[in-house]
Amino acid sequence: MTNPLTLVAGGAGFVGSHLIARLLDQGDEVLCLDNLQTARASNLRLLEGRPGFRFIKADIVDPLPQAVTAEAGRITRIYNLACAASPPLYQLDPEHTMMTNVVGTNRLLRLAESAGARLLLTSTSEVYGDPEVHPQQEDYRGSVNCTGPRACYDEGKRAAEALAFDYARMGRAEVRVARLFNTYGPHMHPEDGRVVSNLICQALSDRDITLYGDGSQTRSFCYVSDMVDALTALMESNVGMEPVNVGNPVELTVKELADHVVALTGTRNKVVYLPLPVDDPRRRRPDISRAKALLGWEPRVGLAEGLEKTCAWFAEELARPKMAAA
Amino acid sequence: MTNPLTLVAGGAGFVGSHLIARLLDQGDEVLCLDNLQTARASNLRLLEGRPGFRFIKADIVDPLPQAVTAEAGRITRIYNLACAASPPLYQLDPEHTMMTNVVGTNRLLRLAESAGARLLLTSTSEVYGDPEVHPQQEDYRGSVNCTGPRACYDEGKRAAEALAFDYARMGRAEVRVARLFNTYGPHMHPEDGRVVSNLICQALSDRDITLYGDGSQTRSFCYVSDMVDALTALMESNVGMEPVNVGNPVELTVKELADHVVALTGTRNKVVYLPLPVDDPRRRRPDISRAKALLGWEPRVGLAEGLEKTCAWFAEELARPKMAAA
Repeated sequence: MTNPLTLVAGGAGFVGSHLIARLLDQGDEVLCLDNLQTARASNLRLLEGRPGFRFIKADIVDPLPQAVTAEAGRITRIYNLACAASPPLYQLDPEHTMMTNVVGTNRLLRLAESAGARLLLTSTSEVYGDPEVHPQQEDYRGSVNCTGPRACYDEGKRAAEALAFDYARMGRAEVRVARLFNTYGPHMHPEDGRVVSNLICQALSDRDITLYGDGSQTRSFCYVSDMVDALTALMESNVGMEPVNVGNPVELTVKELADHVVALTGTRNKVVYLPLPVDDPRRRRPDISRAKALLGWEPRVGLAEGLEKTCAWFAEELARPKMAAA
Repeated sequence: MTNPLTLVAGGAGFVGSHLIARLLDQGDEVLCLDNLQTARASNLRLLEGRPGFRFIKADIVDPLPQAVTAEAGRITRIYNLACAASPPLYQLDPEHTMMTNVVGTNRLLRLAESAGARLLLTSTSEVYGDPEVHPQQEDYRGSVNCTGPRACYDEGKRAAEALAFDYARMGRAEVRVARLFNTYGPHMHPEDGRVVSNLICQALSDRDITLYGDGSQTRSFCYVSDMVDALTALMESNVGMEPVNVGNPVELTVKELADHVVALTGTRNKVVYLPLPVDDPRRRRPDISRAKALLGWEPRVGLAEGLEKTCAWFAEELARPKMAAA
């Protein structure tokens, strides 16, 4: 009797590292793959040495390392969280972003097929593009500009979903597809350009607080522990032939988010307004009826609590290099 | 001084073989790549032996053959028409369909980059999915079900467009993107499941004429010589940063098309109605204002003339094996 093994691609990233911590807490054995393109090395340091954890540096665009394929007989679960997720980072090398989603996902699907494992794909609210339907239900087909600078990510994820459901339809592998809306919490990369980390890091340093457009665009922010609850629940559910939105349906404007962060941190930094990036979505809120009904899941951590924990973590994190230097 | 060379991927297919014939008529030297997955061998026989023509059997999902990369110094134009295009055929192996569009297109884009060549991608009206806007302009973002059985093709083409425009934006290669609407004419595969060839072949044999749904769904059919005019004009234009619809804007229902074919062939075969396939588009008509304005192109062959030529060709074609057997 061999021990089951869970593979987490992108496991050194923000959500991935929280997911692995949870799986290890449950007593699972976890193999983490990551190319360390956008991951924080310190996320790995929190995991390394924990019983059942192993890390392999690899890019899923390339053929999977022999150390992975050799374990196929034991792999029962594959979580695919691999891909740079913030626009400035995924736009640095759009070809690689597309290939990570299409070629990388396909390599993991083939592994799932040969291992008889179940694969959970982390897709994204970006499959809805700049939505004309609000809030977004899973059957909304989206409004994505397939020729624009965000297409490498948005269309890459749409193509990855297409592949996953084709494998499922043909009986090649069991799949689960989660569409993640904005997520935040400790372990975010301070420099990855996502709005929560941007605002908090600006407030905690002496930089201007930057808002894009007039700050009236809306987002819905899910605390990372709620997200991990959703992903593990979906993986172990029988919801195989339909994507599931996971996110927090409490919607607020980016300006309101900034006000929260300013109040929490007491910053007196100036607020400056910059032009809205191309194809930036104006509104974003998940309809999570499906997740509630089929997974019995809904977010439990409110924005005040989540932001406070996140600010506290960033304050410690940003102080760290200065302490080391002192 | 070396002679310029044009590469045509998918050159043994229906549109590809007409395109190559035109390029050879112009005196171009042409290298044809095809995996012969859905191509008719007889299309190749019409080209083989013509001065300037060379064929290499290859699948663009695989690394390009050395015989192609060795010619990179001479390649100035790359037409990518490679992919099974009819739903029954591209759904046989959805993984391969997706990879042809994404990995295959990327291999040709990399070749264009290294050769300093210009690449024309044949995208499709399928990027609009089952459109909610009518007729379809290029800036319409489409209504594609990215989880359905047509997604391997539709999302594959959307991803290929995303890649092409990323190469263009980054200055890696010059690209042209055509969105082809339904095309018909001689050299279609009798068995590929497209509506024009289906109806004509049924009318010319003793099979029932099949209509899907109530036959009220509309299509717009472009004769293949008009399509070739458009593709060559676009390739030599300076329209690099936007996709261009190419097709015939005369819209008719599939039932009306069947009536035309019945009248032309004088068939007395029974008309039968079958269920509409999943995600079948209800309406489809190109807005070709952009092609008219920027390429000075519009279709010249009307449906009556085009259908007559096509029926005549199919009549000869379907008679051929019987003659050979006699």
